Amino acid sequence: MRLASVGLPHASKIFNVSTLNKNVLNAEYAVRGAIVIRADEINKQLQNNNHKFPFNDIVFCNIGNPQQLRQKPITFFRNVLSLVTSPELIDNAGLQQTLKPDVFQRARTILSGIDSGSTGAYTHSQGLPSIRKNVANFITRRDNIDDPELINPDSIFLTDGASPGVQNGLKALIRDHNDGIMIPIPQYPLYSASITLCGGQQVGYLLNEQDGWSLEVEELERSLKEATDKGINVRALVIINPGNPTGQVLSKSNMENVIDFCERRGVLLLADEVYQENVYHEKPFLSFLKVAEEMNKLDTVEMISYHSVSKGFLGECGRRGGYFHLSPAIDPGVRDQMYKLSSINLCPNVDGQIMVDLMVNPPKKGEESYEQYNDEKHQILSSLKRRAVKLVDTLNTLDGVSCQTAEGAMYAFPTITIPPKAVEEAKKKNIAPDAYYALCMLEEAGLCVVPGSGFGQKNGTYHFRTTFLPPEEKMDAVLTRVAVFHNNFMTRFA
Amino acid sequence: MRLASVGLPHASKIFNVSTLNKNVLNAEYAVRGAIVIRADEINKQLQNNNHKFPFNDIVFCNIGNPQQLRQKPITFFRNVLSLVTSPELIDNAGLQQTLKPDVFQRARTILSGIDSGSTGAYTHSQGLPSIRKNVANFITRRDNIDDPELINPDSIFLTDGASPGVQNGLKALIRDHNDGIMIPIPQYPLYSASITLCGGQQVGYLLNEQDGWSLEVEELERSLKEATDKGINVRALVIINPGNPTGQVLSKSNMENVIDFCERRGVLLLADEVYQENVYHEKPFLSFLKVAEEMNKLDTVEMISYHSVSKGFLGECGRRGGYFHLSPAIDPGVRDQMYKLSSINLCPNVDGQIMVDLMVNPPKKGEESYEQYNDEKHQILSSLKRRAVKLVDTLNTLDGVSCQTAEGAMYAFPTITIPPKAVEEAKKKNIAPDAYYALCMLEEAGLCVVPGSGFGQKNGTYHFRTTFLPPEEKMDAVLTRVAVFHNNFMTRFA
Repeated sequence: MRLASVGLPHASKIFNVSTLNKNVLNAEYAVRGAIVIRADEINKQLQNNNHKFPFNDIVFCNIGNPQQLRQKPITFFRNVLSLVTSPELIDNAGLQQTLKPDVFQRARTILSGIDSGSTGAYTHSQGLPSIRKNVANFITRRDNIDDPELINPDSIFLTDGASPGVQNGLKALIRDHNDGIMIPIPQYPLYSASITLCGGQQVGYLLNEQDGWSLEVEELERSLKEATDKGINVRALVIINPGNPTGQVLSKSNMENVIDFCERRGVLLLADEVYQENVYHEKPFLSFLKVAEEMNKLDTVEMISYHSVSKGFLGECGRRGGYFHLSPAIDPGVRDQMYKLSSINLCPNVDGQIMVDLMVNPPKKGEESYEQYNDEKHQILSSLKRRAVKLVDTLNTLDGVSCQTAEGAMYAFPTITIPPKAVEEAKKKNIAPDAYYALCMLEEAGLCVVPGSGFGQKNGTYHFRTTFLPPEEKMDAVLTRVAVFHNNFMTRFA
Repeated sequence: MRLASVGLPHASKIFNVSTLNKNVLNAEYAVRGAIVIRADEINKQLQNNNHKFPFNDIVFCNIGNPQQLRQKPITFFRNVLSLVTSPELIDNAGLQQTLKPDVFQRARTILSGIDSGSTGAYTHSQGLPSIRKNVANFITRRDNIDDPELINPDSIFLTDGASPGVQNGLKALIRDHNDGIMIPIPQYPLYSASITLCGGQQVGYLLNEQDGWSLEVEELERSLKEATDKGINVRALVIINPGNPTGQVLSKSNMENVIDFCERRGVLLLADEVYQENVYHEKPFLSFLKVAEEMNKLDTVEMISYHSVSKGFLGECGRRGGYFHLSPAIDPGVRDQMYKLSSINLCPNVDGQIMVDLMVNPPKKGEESYEQYNDEKHQILSSLKRRAVKLVDTLNTLDGVSCQTAEGAMYAFPTITIPPKAVEEAKKKNIAPDAYYALCMLEEAGLCVVPGSGFGQKNGTYHFRTTFLPPEEKMDAVLTRVAVFHNNFMTRFA
């Protein structure tokens, strides 16, 4: 992985770690950190047959990357994308015998929404107007909003996945080291890393693990007061719903309290809703926009919401498609500044834009592809639900492991009781105890998970995040590997 | 374009232009600035037939976006992309009668380089190893480098177009307001905007327009000294070759002097080489890597080079595909930090990665698609050359306009003598004289160009940047619109 050092010694280089921007140096991103880099190394060694590991494959549970673990893409979406990429194929006789009529129709519709007729041209910096219009309609439908004018396509920004949109929002919000952003503990490290890169401060609020990782407004108040007392200007509150890494789904009354909090305290709401399709329990997903609208607060609550094609049942992570929506109360001047930020990168990739278009506008009942689409969608989501239950149940059978129900998203975040002797061992190796646990799981069982310390956790507790994305037929084998490893680990350090 | 303001007055919003990060507020990006926003508005009004404009279409010459102006994509590249997007189509009998065998073969090869077999999975944060290997081979071939080990695939970072790579480099280089980056005047505003966003300082060096926009080391020394005297730490030197907006191609001896300058002054070299395929005159393109290698300075010269699928004859801007390469002398610790920065956005979009793969590895002589590929490539490049010559020649016939030869890239950057009365008029309207000129050209002739002030220009001189991308059959009509507008403008303000 590392390059050989050439020429001058590090210290005499113009550009080295001690002359690098400190915010870059201090940023951490565990989801692709040291353990994943080690997993890649092991993966390479597994290619040759006389490797020294007690397993023959690495199962990557470190990241929500469904298609890496063989989740099938939605056929209709991919076929439409193939046709808009090579429009001459729309009239191909052979294909017309293979693909359903609505595939060709949809490809034509999408191309008619592109002035140049080509997916190879830069689009408007916010993304194609035709697609932003469809996103606005999707939000209006999803949230059952009466006023069709309320969601303005110019308040929608298509992005290369949700992440760059989050980073642009934080870049605009954070002015200096006294500005803080409230993030859940545990959180998705995109937030901590981006806040550090922007030179701002993380203001953590704890989720209540014992109560299914619930979000309590008293804790928001406590965290805000603590930050304010330190002289930090809290600019925004990040809510991840459904939760990552924690998988909880917020209730309506809970969301109402959060909105009241933001209004009362003058804090902007950043609503990360990329897992909105991944809900496995009774509690339905509600968008913060919907809840604010029912509270008649859309005029006052400033909110940015995020969605993505990477999650849900699409799992089209590689497309890097997503969008963010500025709620009606966001200042138009801010919108213009966000436009300028987008324009510096010219535009989001067009295939990702088109995947967003397909996500918000899937085949409808009566269209030729509807049944196949619906079957594929149902199979993926029901299988994810079965795997979620199985994973959590198994984890809870393990000695010293306790895991809350995964109501949504694609992760479990169990507590692990790490024996004192293992904690000592970790100290010797100068790594966090849960990082040591995860490293052992990788070296001994070939399972790549992320230590809780990468997400933040209550002091003195230890966790790891694992996805429940391994293929269903392999799930039992994976869970056995987890169990055997864990029991050995506990015995070894008893 | 602007949203209606809802709810509270701007001043009482949490998030408004006065509470926004000042670096974001101060960043400027003229290529998609006020004039382009106005052009979009006019474009909308042109849709209805009783519009008030003396023209029926806007010709967008503000941005190097070939396919927006109907440049045809390379058939082989698009067909391969269609197949990897829907792998089941590789075995489609109808397609096998339509497409050439090497299209299927290439699609299989690319898919075999993706562990998951799907373009919908996140890849390695630097991009697929199989593609980075091909990029390394391309550089080795292009620069005729003997040691095949010299270009390490781990020193290649695939990106969503060149721009995010440039921004990550600057983010890592700029530590505080005392750090400066040397940029050409005129420059491509990605650089000025990104430096401002990072809170650093622009250190401009003037190109010599009278000498074909040549780059003179004496001017580099002058600019460096001026900055150092102000207490600015100059971290890096940006060279755009072929030039944007200026179109010049650097000579080998000139590049040798630049490399000596960087070594002598301890300045990192940022080599923007995205126009390397767009060379229309005798002077060949040479990469800075190649020149440094022939000088035996690869051990000491720290350099980052950029390339993209958006330019060249591909013009696949919408794919957002590109890469940057860390020269062998770049510190391995810096590489690891650049990897971390990439990983925060997970990975570049996979279709863009694949387009990079196709760019660096086109059909070879003897393969079924070679002739068609070669014809398409030749047609595009020869037509660009003809249009470059015609545009520059016509501009030079205009009273008060003088334009240097466009040796490369896709732009002309003529000087315009703006009559004092027009300068006054601009002052009244509180915009720069060349912005006023460009605005008039838009309102009166429907041509969208970018004022020179958006790129930087010698004090007291005025320019505009125009592409020579309008379709060849429309070029005469476009040039007539330019000439008629210009003559009217000069007469009106005589």
